[in-house]
Amino acid sequence: MGIELSYAVSKLQSLSTSDHASVVSMNLFVALLCACIVIGHLLEENRWVNESITALVIGVCTGIVILLVSGGKSSHLLVFSEDLFFIYLLPPIIFNAGFQVKKKRFFENFMTIILFGAVGTLISCGIISLGVIQIFKKMDIGSLDIGDYLAIGAIFAATDSVCTLQVLNQDETPLLYSLVFGEGVVNDATSVVLFNAIQSFDVTHIDPSIALHFTGNLLYLFVTSTLLGAMTGLLSAYIIKKLYFGRHSTDREVALMMLMAYLSYMLAELFYLSGILTVFFCGIVMSHYTWHNVTEGSRVTTKHAFATLSFVAETFIFLYVGMDALDIEKWRFVSDSPGTSVAVSSILIVLIMVGRAAFVFPLSFLINLFKKNQSEKLSLRKQVVIWWAGLMRGAVSMALAYNQFTRLGHTQLRANAILITSTITVVLFSTVVFGLMTKPLIRFLARSKQTTSMVMSDPSTPKSVSVPLLGEGLDSELDIPRPGSIRALLATPTHTVHYYWRKFDNAFMRPVFGGRGFVPFVPGSPTERSFIQGEGE
Amino acid sequence: MGIELSYAVSKLQSLSTSDHASVVSMNLFVALLCACIVIGHLLEENRWVNESITALVIGVCTGIVILLVSGGKSSHLLVFSEDLFFIYLLPPIIFNAGFQVKKKRFFENFMTIILFGAVGTLISCGIISLGVIQIFKKMDIGSLDIGDYLAIGAIFAATDSVCTLQVLNQDETPLLYSLVFGEGVVNDATSVVLFNAIQSFDVTHIDPSIALHFTGNLLYLFVTSTLLGAMTGLLSAYIIKKLYFGRHSTDREVALMMLMAYLSYMLAELFYLSGILTVFFCGIVMSHYTWHNVTEGSRVTTKHAFATLSFVAETFIFLYVGMDALDIEKWRFVSDSPGTSVAVSSILIVLIMVGRAAFVFPLSFLINLFKKNQSEKLSLRKQVVIWWAGLMRGAVSMALAYNQFTRLGHTQLRANAILITSTITVVLFSTVVFGLMTKPLIRFLARSKQTTSMVMSDPSTPKSVSVPLLGEGLDSELDIPRPGSIRALLATPTHTVHYYWRKFDNAFMRPVFGGRGFVPFVPGSPTERSFIQGEGE
Repeated sequence: MGIELSYAVSKLQSLSTSDHASVVSMNLFVALLCACIVIGHLLEENRWVNESITALVIGVCTGIVILLVSGGKSSHLLVFSEDLFFIYLLPPIIFNAGFQVKKKRFFENFMTIILFGAVGTLISCGIISLGVIQIFKKMDIGSLDIGDYLAIGAIFAATDSVCTLQVLNQDETPLLYSLVFGEGVVNDATSVVLFNAIQSFDVTHIDPSIALHFTGNLLYLFVTSTLLGAMTGLLSAYIIKKLYFGRHSTDREVALMMLMAYLSYMLAELFYLSGILTVFFCGIVMSHYTWHNVTEGSRVTTKHAFATLSFVAETFIFLYVGMDALDIEKWRFVSDSPGTSVAVSSILIVLIMVGRAAFVFPLSFLINLFKKNQSEKLSLRKQVVIWWAGLMRGAVSMALAYNQFTRLGHTQLRANAILITSTITVVLFSTVVFGLMTKPLIRFLARSKQTTSMVMSDPSTPKSVSVPLLGEGLDSELDIPRPGSIRALLATPTHTVHYYWRKFDNAFMRPVFGGRGFVPFVPGSPTERSFIQGEGE
Repeated sequence: MGIELSYAVSKLQSLSTSDHASVVSMNLFVALLCACIVIGHLLEENRWVNESITALVIGVCTGIVILLVSGGKSSHLLVFSEDLFFIYLLPPIIFNAGFQVKKKRFFENFMTIILFGAVGTLISCGIISLGVIQIFKKMDIGSLDIGDYLAIGAIFAATDSVCTLQVLNQDETPLLYSLVFGEGVVNDATSVVLFNAIQSFDVTHIDPSIALHFTGNLLYLFVTSTLLGAMTGLLSAYIIKKLYFGRHSTDREVALMMLMAYLSYMLAELFYLSGILTVFFCGIVMSHYTWHNVTEGSRVTTKHAFATLSFVAETFIFLYVGMDALDIEKWRFVSDSPGTSVAVSSILIVLIMVGRAAFVFPLSFLINLFKKNQSEKLSLRKQVVIWWAGLMRGAVSMALAYNQFTRLGHTQLRANAILITSTITVVLFSTVVFGLMTKPLIRFLARSKQTTSMVMSDPSTPKSVSVPLLGEGLDSELDIPRPGSIRALLATPTHTVHYYWRKFDNAFMRPVFGGRGFVPFVPGSPTERSFIQGEGE
């Protein structure tokens, strides 16, 4: 009877989870996430490694251990699910990016970002597709139709904005950060839309009317997604301003901001729009209006809580990709012909580099033609950094590749198995190798320029002054305008638009939706006091 | 071909979610959560309604609308899953309770809490089981064996600590809050352990050795779960103190605290312990040590972020229970004999009230025997409030009932269908009716006492002075000791234990694990400065 009781106790788990194996996996995964954070922190001063690479390496190591323990049966703890990625991990990352982005700089470079993100992605996709059609047809990699080739183009045109965020520093290189990151967001949306169009495309008939339709649809998606995000953000600002003014409740405010941000993403999915764009613009609007309507406690909380969620989601993705890379089943086909797999991966990496070069340099030339001021032009150095920072491929590519090449089961078709493993190889290689070289590259470019110009702090943004505490303070000089050019900057059209926007914002938007200056922080407010009391406990 | 393109665009969703229906559900659910928050805020001043009831009512209304729209087919958006409840919703609620609980008061009343929570739950379970055995056997409700009867006892012995948290106010009635809530946590653990023991019990043979085994197991669970929680909390304090001291990174600190808290819960599940107890004590230890080792930004963030997560999870549960209550399938069997169902529910509610009275008043009498000081004794008024505040049944009862009575499919067996619907009825009735009456009851008891004694503020806890801004300030007087009794309080054994603990804490624990006074907050620390800069954006 004692046995029955211990059995009773051992059945405790059946209440909590369906099986014990999943509890073990979750424990290990959470513990690994903690390890990534601690090790990432210890390596922070290191000039080569960043947090993505740490997580990837830990993931690969864990994968090896699991492979050995399970006797070569499996290497991962959780099964990769597109839902997990697109519904839970991506929204907090993109929302936080919008929430923390330096709005002024983002809108100053709006046209450049759209050019790089939309037109650039199309060019890149086209070149990669043409390349694989030409090369893969001559190789022995199984049957692929024209739709597969175009899909490959879309898959590898999707840059990894998550990795970019970790490589570039908003405070050190603000112009490059806003260009590369802004491009990443637009690129995400473009490549997902492109991929879906290709998947259901009648690729045997391509004529101008389709191209027109397609462009129209893309424009429609961009405009409606942006508007939806902005409207959800404004709604949250309005609700919090109307209801909570004067009697603040921090927990409700934070909950409402989180839920409304997530709602904007889900609404976009509901209306078949681009959730990525929507949640990004929702983040921008929330940081411009809603954030200023809430209590001091809510401001600190949202600022850090969103950043933390985004940080955990990023680490989660890289850890998973690292573990998934060793999944034995995928490599079974490839092991017969390792040469082919290496060749395919190398070709893809070269095509990615060529495809990106093919739009970064020509488009930069075009953009420079329209900029009168020398300091606003994209120097060759900056062009190289932009080109380089967009070479990494990440979770979006993985998700798209799984979607395209596992529909019929990747173990059945040789070509599918090769392309899945090649995608993993490209993601790992580009993240680790290109990622490792990015920090030194930016440092090198900054240093070589240092010999010709002085290090100056940007007079218009005194905030960035304290940041070089961490780095060497040299990178910031890459895109800082000379003091003398301030007057010239003000004369440019972008600034005129900004001036009128400011006037409009102050006259019509802020009185309705709040924002800085309308809800001054009162140090003695009830919430603040109760926080201090809580501290005393 | 235009059709193909619109099809392409409409396939966007296939990337993000498996089907559009789930996107619609999630949208509706998130929107309803927002609605609950806004309406709950508007009704905050109302003396009858609390947030649980608001969410329940909104859930029921939505259920009716969905029933009408779907033509009577279904009433809920999501399917109730024990995993969802036990893995994602319960841990943040219990952790936050531990994190925000007034530690001093909790430990002062530790013995009382254990008596009520463990012994009380056993008494309550026994009485309810005996009651249903006597009464249900005479009624026509289908076949139930002795195991089912005992399970009913365990199911309805589980009080709803979530609802209690919303009904009582920690600042207004600190003693009652810590007693009722502390009891709730221990009760949760006891009833889940009890339920599992019963499910795999050979109920035909009950002898003293089983009872001894059972008691031993219960003790083992309590001690190990508590230790695991405390150790995880201490580990987080140690890591953050060792690694992050001097160069703080807010996002990493917050991420680490969240992940370690969750890890403690999952570790408990891994070792078949009580996750509820573990995460509760982890919360207590984290608020005592870890919280004082982090940056000012992290402190504000964790304080509010944990409270927000807990708040959203609570609202989620009540919203769901409200929606689930109208699930048509469950009511099919019952509609044949509505009288039986009403009778069963009424009997259960009466048994719950009797079962709780059977331990609250005798145990209070026992406890009062050991208290020498008059002010420390539990007056009849307080006993009534404790009895009343534990009458509500909630999500734990629901989850246990589903586990017991849907194993063979609740549509097949008449008895199962009746007991599931009765559980829903009891949960709804107790939450809404008892919940509605709790605030006025506490107010009434406070007022009737006011005529005999003066309203005084607690001299030892100046923090609670500012709180009556919200309420009427009368409730706090329920358990405030008279100033003259301070010296007497210090002489009691609990305070002696507390004194030695303080000495031990200062001499050994704080130098290793940090805590208040060891990492003084420097207003000009880098993180703090960068936050202020962020604000200027």
